[in-house]
Amino acid sequence: MGRRVSRESSNKDQQPSARGEATASRPASRSNRPTLATIAAEAGVSLPTVSKVLNGRSDVAEATRRRVEHLLSAHNYLRPGRRRARRSGLIDVVINGLDSPWAVEILRGVEAECAAHGVAPVLSLPQHGDTRPASWTSLPAQHDSDGVILVTSRMDQQQRAQLERAGVALVVIDPVNMPDPDIASVGATNWAGGLAATEHLISLGHERIAVIGGPSDMLCTQARIDGYRSALERAGLPVDRNLIRYGDFRHEGGFRESYALLTSPEPPTAIFAGSDQQAMGAYEAARQAGMQIPSDVSIVGFDDLPLCQWLSPPLTSVRQPLEEMGRVAARTLLQLIDGQPLVSTRVELATELRVRLSTAPPRR
Amino acid sequence: MGRRVSRESSNKDQQPSARGEATASRPASRSNRPTLATIAAEAGVSLPTVSKVLNGRSDVAEATRRRVEHLLSAHNYLRPGRRRARRSGLIDVVINGLDSPWAVEILRGVEAECAAHGVAPVLSLPQHGDTRPASWTSLPAQHDSDGVILVTSRMDQQQRAQLERAGVALVVIDPVNMPDPDIASVGATNWAGGLAATEHLISLGHERIAVIGGPSDMLCTQARIDGYRSALERAGLPVDRNLIRYGDFRHEGGFRESYALLTSPEPPTAIFAGSDQQAMGAYEAARQAGMQIPSDVSIVGFDDLPLCQWLSPPLTSVRQPLEEMGRVAARTLLQLIDGQPLVSTRVELATELRVRLSTAPPRR
Repeated sequence: MGRRVSRESSNKDQQPSARGEATASRPASRSNRPTLATIAAEAGVSLPTVSKVLNGRSDVAEATRRRVEHLLSAHNYLRPGRRRARRSGLIDVVINGLDSPWAVEILRGVEAECAAHGVAPVLSLPQHGDTRPASWTSLPAQHDSDGVILVTSRMDQQQRAQLERAGVALVVIDPVNMPDPDIASVGATNWAGGLAATEHLISLGHERIAVIGGPSDMLCTQARIDGYRSALERAGLPVDRNLIRYGDFRHEGGFRESYALLTSPEPPTAIFAGSDQQAMGAYEAARQAGMQIPSDVSIVGFDDLPLCQWLSPPLTSVRQPLEEMGRVAARTLLQLIDGQPLVSTRVELATELRVRLSTAPPRR
Repeated sequence: MGRRVSRESSNKDQQPSARGEATASRPASRSNRPTLATIAAEAGVSLPTVSKVLNGRSDVAEATRRRVEHLLSAHNYLRPGRRRARRSGLIDVVINGLDSPWAVEILRGVEAECAAHGVAPVLSLPQHGDTRPASWTSLPAQHDSDGVILVTSRMDQQQRAQLERAGVALVVIDPVNMPDPDIASVGATNWAGGLAATEHLISLGHERIAVIGGPSDMLCTQARIDGYRSALERAGLPVDRNLIRYGDFRHEGGFRESYALLTSPEPPTAIFAGSDQQAMGAYEAARQAGMQIPSDVSIVGFDDLPLCQWLSPPLTSVRQPLEEMGRVAARTLLQLIDGQPLVSTRVELATELRVRLSTAPPRR
């Protein structure tokens, strides 16, 4: 889907007053630099225009952009997000637990990109164990890191303000709630993935296809189920509300919903699960219902974790480029730390269906 | 198994000459301290006795130990492994790839223990990606960390010497080759695990039990297969060399060896796999051979990863306390960094059989 949102409301951070505050606590790196207002006056443009250029927005005339960029460069302008000239070379990677193999794939990508840039990723897994600091937002201060990559965590306004005050750069991977257009985020094309999975099952001849999402308030769940619905509608198939289920992304939910579906009076011939872990729950539900995969029921997963190839039978799944998402997040964070403008604060990488042995035409 | 090896040969590191060398490069922290020889003379004991006390060995008379410890404390003696009074609060966790869910469990334990002590773990996954520094041994210098936890990597004498020169503390988890008695290491009771898995299958009535190990040169493989052999011998069952196979710890090897075993003229009725990933390969081999688990063939894994519960059927497995191993390794490293003596440089945590639905009596 590649929805792109530009960095708009961060303008306010670059108002002279806000910068004055920042300067007070960190005078060394800020002393001889002009305010953005000075640069705007010198360039003969408005302050918002300078902010637009700083934030890499495209709605600025090319000549204006060049003039402003030249002045920013000449004055060695540093963005407010940078708190010091000398960096620690550390970034924090904050993941809510490592229970899911999903997060591990992302972590591999983050680490690889960090290693390529000589940056050391410090790992934090809050909510796992009981001896944590109250909030992950205090971590960067603890070991003086330059930025944070946050993996699918909820973030409230207070936490965000805390990071902003500390001048810590932030990138969010697959945010749970609607990504704030101010915050750089990386995700995958969930709607297109839901469409592809469902179209694959339709092309095999399935007409009663169930879908199991994650929690219904999660953006990615909505996007995938909308993709599922669109595929059915495009094929002229009815959307049966009984075949749309919600759970978490875990095995238990996949098992529970699949078992209920497969033992119902009118069972589906195929199940599109919201994650590979859910699909594993569907495998066990089929076994307990005395059904073979794929001859009695086809199953599609989502994520395409390495273990899909190891399942019996190997699982057809919608690939999220998790490692690449980790790499892009790390690259984006390093850009922010270096004060480089982003082309877009929101990046969605393409999903892709990987067909294996868990899907086949329905039994007639 | 709990084989305990004391820190013996590190004595030589504490000879005055070796310390003199170290002092030359780091004069600040070493200046007004006496040599160990001075302390030995003051205490009226031999130099090796002082070393024994420093290394926490038990073969020193209690009164002597107290006298020497008092002098070491009075002279503010720092162990050679400590390079500075002020710490960075960072440690390196070096894992050869994160391909295996096995390493992820260990990582969770390391991170939890670090968080409890306010220490930040920096993650490095060498051999994954192509832009790495030549050797992980240069990492601590790059970001000035206090120590290294190394997960199942081979380490040569040169790498060890490099860490020693840099005064970096080191703990190895489940070392590939025989752990050097000088180096602190953490593992699991592999022999006992092999014994328990095989005894479980024998108790169900199996007599033709196959075992698939990891690489034959790995310590843990040898220990597990020795445990398997002992269980058969204790039960008076013959050891059939055709039923002992080696592979890697991955799915592919498990599939290949299991398929060969199950399609042989005299197939086993049970397979004890060297890892849960291998066991997943055995599941697929059974499926392709048209056999049901557990009615046609019983399967036992090793590691007891979280995914064992998600397999269909759920997998009986020998639990390695991986998270706890990670915790113990981190705790041991922090002790070394603090210059505290270790009770033992080698710790092996107990394995435990978890019986699930993949094992049953053989079909008669």
